Amino acid sequence: MPAPGTGPVASAPMDHETIRVGLLGCGHVGGALAGLLVQDRDAIAARTGLRLELAAVAVRSTTRERDVAVPAGLLTNDAAAVVSDPSIDVVVEVIGGIEPARSLILQALKLGKPVVTANKELLANVGSELFEAAGSAGVDLLFEASVGGGIPLIRPLRESLAGERIRRVMGIVNGTTNYILTRMTEQGASYQDALSEAQSLGYAERDPTADVEGFDAAAKAAILAGVAFGLRVVAGDVYREGISAITPDDIAYAGRLGYVIKLLAVLERDEEGRVDVRVHPAMVPATHPLAAVRDSFNAVFVEGDAVGELMLLGRGAGGLPTASAVLGDLLDAAHNLRSGGVPRTVSLAQGAVRPFDDLVSLYYLSLEVADRPGVLASVSRVFGEHAVSIRSMEQTGLGAEARLVFITHSATERDVQACLHDLRRLDVVDRIGSLVRVVGGR
Amino acid sequence: MPAPGTGPVASAPMDHETIRVGLLGCGHVGGALAGLLVQDRDAIAARTGLRLELAAVAVRSTTRERDVAVPAGLLTNDAAAVVSDPSIDVVVEVIGGIEPARSLILQALKLGKPVVTANKELLANVGSELFEAAGSAGVDLLFEASVGGGIPLIRPLRESLAGERIRRVMGIVNGTTNYILTRMTEQGASYQDALSEAQSLGYAERDPTADVEGFDAAAKAAILAGVAFGLRVVAGDVYREGISAITPDDIAYAGRLGYVIKLLAVLERDEEGRVDVRVHPAMVPATHPLAAVRDSFNAVFVEGDAVGELMLLGRGAGGLPTASAVLGDLLDAAHNLRSGGVPRTVSLAQGAVRPFDDLVSLYYLSLEVADRPGVLASVSRVFGEHAVSIRSMEQTGLGAEARLVFITHSATERDVQACLHDLRRLDVVDRIGSLVRVVGGR
Repeated sequence: MPAPGTGPVASAPMDHETIRVGLLGCGHVGGALAGLLVQDRDAIAARTGLRLELAAVAVRSTTRERDVAVPAGLLTNDAAAVVSDPSIDVVVEVIGGIEPARSLILQALKLGKPVVTANKELLANVGSELFEAAGSAGVDLLFEASVGGGIPLIRPLRESLAGERIRRVMGIVNGTTNYILTRMTEQGASYQDALSEAQSLGYAERDPTADVEGFDAAAKAAILAGVAFGLRVVAGDVYREGISAITPDDIAYAGRLGYVIKLLAVLERDEEGRVDVRVHPAMVPATHPLAAVRDSFNAVFVEGDAVGELMLLGRGAGGLPTASAVLGDLLDAAHNLRSGGVPRTVSLAQGAVRPFDDLVSLYYLSLEVADRPGVLASVSRVFGEHAVSIRSMEQTGLGAEARLVFITHSATERDVQACLHDLRRLDVVDRIGSLVRVVGGR
Repeated sequence: MPAPGTGPVASAPMDHETIRVGLLGCGHVGGALAGLLVQDRDAIAARTGLRLELAAVAVRSTTRERDVAVPAGLLTNDAAAVVSDPSIDVVVEVIGGIEPARSLILQALKLGKPVVTANKELLANVGSELFEAAGSAGVDLLFEASVGGGIPLIRPLRESLAGERIRRVMGIVNGTTNYILTRMTEQGASYQDALSEAQSLGYAERDPTADVEGFDAAAKAAILAGVAFGLRVVAGDVYREGISAITPDDIAYAGRLGYVIKLLAVLERDEEGRVDVRVHPAMVPATHPLAAVRDSFNAVFVEGDAVGELMLLGRGAGGLPTASAVLGDLLDAAHNLRSGGVPRTVSLAQGAVRPFDDLVSLYYLSLEVADRPGVLASVSRVFGEHAVSIRSMEQTGLGAEARLVFITHSATERDVQACLHDLRRLDVVDRIGSLVRVVGGR
């Protein structure tokens, strides 16, 4: 297999109207993108005046069967050669993971080539290194597809809202967990049944940890912190809880109170300019636009001082929607290349991140306790000792046990955690159930 | 009052890092923008590296009291002088209406100055003239604020989705009517009561015609036709029906069938590439994201071949949200000015517009009829004669009368209108009530 630059590909007629694309990776997203670039080439040129030519596709195996017919001669397993090929104008990285993606992107940027990437893991871990390299080289590094799949999200935040003072961003950025929670909410399914259904539909992996425990959402939250607040945050900095402990009872109770439970990535700036970045299940008012985001849809709700409230919703995953976002970036990079436009750079700063313990929220808490006189008094005393005030309480019998569910008034995470610590030590408390933060109000 | 260029404004220190903004109009949007430019000047510069300076504000009366403190010396009533002042880099037009806005914008473009406008009436009537002028001059003409207020909508459609083959756009683009329909749906209010409430809250004008009869939405639909389909459509070309005939009964019946009634702007491309552009009340499935768009929120739902389904939601009106959209455009124009980037142009073509009669839809129809034997048979015969097949029917008594409500199977507008024509001539039919098209499925 000849490296690009030596085969028939490089000898294709070149003109400065055509932008030659080097594609690194040909999985779900890469394959869908290759399909769009090949099938829609003329239609895209007619719509945009920009002729994109798929010039090389770097893959691990050049012999594997693929869903998409990549034209013969384009496949190579030498990704570095694609990047360094002087006839390649723009590089698209859809390999995923940190290496070799990181080195290839840095190499492309050093060569002055714009890069489009869909790689959330990379950006959430070494994003600032990549943005600095793009800034030094003065070329585009575009990443619309890294959060929210096909939803135009990064570009609106970076451009339309460039002048906006953003107060809060709340996102449903993981379709798998939103699907599971939708089934639990609408059909009363158990977490396990909803997960199995999601797995059988291909929405969840055999090992669903990255989705259900919030790791995927945390990576996206780290990227959003950079875009919305200019903050250098890596995935590991993000406070993170998943949905595996949520029960149908929690959801039913939330519903009776007028709330829906969603897994949210929340980024919030307080009055002192400190930002906190967190991922956890949250109770959202049923009338809030995020509450109506069903199934595997993703959506990001943005609150800004001037713009007020915005929500951007769409398909957060899938080859074609994600490829659509990559294509939008490619056309943007191509437009800048052609017109000599100066790319917008991302510069991230170490900012004031608010300690998670300082969070102020309403809390939903469920407890399983012994069903005997005096239990509520013991439990209430613990709340009182930590200055956590109770807004509503409901008790239901479970044979020898009872379940207590509470909604608190505004309290700090610190006080609530201290309260939980002491509740665990009460012998009348058999089990601490779910702790769900209530969001959505101002 | 000195014209800009002769007063203290023009003698302000200039450097090429600063972009000097000439603002035409200082109403709700202009005033809010002036406030942002003055108060947030340093914060905007810190976030974006672009220093915007409000250099002149053209108003009808320079002595009127204003909510926003525009710095002394900036006000002038000579808008043409602001446009031609060589120290002004960018012109913002928020006067509204056709003239003098049109002439001022054409003058600015001829002078090579980028223009940002929020003027939907202008774009929906002489948009193609303005876009051609911007194209010839090679400068930006940006208009994010003209549809959907603060929602990033025009930029995502023009840039993120530049390569996308868009199939359909459905928008709730008028907040007044959405507020009225929400009150009717959620509180069972009558149209009149909901309208009065909207008026008392300042959501509806004393003369609400432009909103409730769909003229405002039709203008926005015409603009969207250009952005989404590159089609030259003026407001008068758009098929238009308002919401004033919708009754609480219609809404209740829709609810029982699992639908919500919304006033939609619908732009749809059929398989032959013909596009239709229309504004009318529509029954949307309750599980559709548009159904959950409440109160005065606006939202635009986009379906594309690759991206699948998207929705962009936010505040469609109001000084600050709209000013936020203008500010985003201003920063874009400033970035291009500074970097020498070539603007993206809009070129509109006369396209194949599908005759409204060719629309294929499900229809909801209510009829008031005499309550006597044989009536349903007469009515059904008329449906049958026009090949309009009935999917469901419900009859309720109203004393000497009865109400019949029908949902049809797929039928053409032509056949349904012919059917209505004949139904009107039946003496057992007292009144034709609402005709609402059902949308949302594929």
